[in-house]
Amino acid sequence: MTDKTDTQVVIAGRVLHLSGYETAEYQQRIASYINDMMAEYAKIQSYQNQPEDMKAILLEINIADDYFKAKKQIDLLNQELDDKEKEIYDLKHDLVAAQMRLETMTQQVADLQKNLAENAKKIVQLETQLKGK
Amino acid sequence: MTDKTDTQVVIAGRVLHLSGYETAEYQQRIASYINDMMAEYAKIQSYQNQPEDMKAILLEINIADDYFKAKKQIDLLNQELDDKEKEIYDLKHDLVAAQMRLETMTQQVADLQKNLAENAKKIVQLETQLKGK
Repeated sequence: MTDKTDTQVVIAGRVLHLSGYETAEYQQRIASYINDMMAEYAKIQSYQNQPEDMKAILLEINIADDYFKAKKQIDLLNQELDDKEKEIYDLKHDLVAAQMRLETMTQQVADLQKNLAENAKKIVQLETQLKGK
Repeated sequence: MTDKTDTQVVIAGRVLHLSGYETAEYQQRIASYINDMMAEYAKIQSYQNQPEDMKAILLEINIADDYFKAKKQIDLLNQELDDKEKEIYDLKHDLVAAQMRLETMTQQVADLQKNLAENAKKIVQLETQLKGK
């Protein structure tokens, strides 16, 4: 496994030391995401007028909203994957059936060709007998 | 489209009125998720000792972490979907090829059966001629 990293990030002007198994790049992306969201909300008058604890809760709700929307997308993608799995199962079934029919027909063609060769031989024999009479 | 809903939720003991196109159930699930996370963190001594603004930032980081992990899962699922799409494309290609071969062989069997019937007829004719001599 990878070693623990200790990453320094700056969020809302506060310096934090994040320790964990995530990469420093990952931690910085999270910090940027939160800072960007804070910057967006700072532009909204009704947000600016809120007390600090309410601002924090509103931000938490919005990050959680991103998370819940992502979870919904995961559910949809899993459903889509199930559908594709089913389609693959059906296609494989059809393919095996077609291959079995091909095998049967290949045998049928071989049998017919054998019969045809025997008949051709018999015709030659009969014609020879007829000429001889 | 659905109408805007106005939902009252309680987060960290504060009452909030959330207005939006999401269902009340969705808003309550978000509130529960944040309250549960707050309750989990409240148990950790090192979190309790933080000033309020730092507590909020730590909570935001953790919600964002859930979000980023979900986004990563979305990327993986999309990759998996692409792979399945490719598999379906290949299977469809193989199935069409097998069906075309089946059509060709069906025609071949019909031709052989026709030849065989003609030969059988010829054999009967020749045998009749031989008996007549």
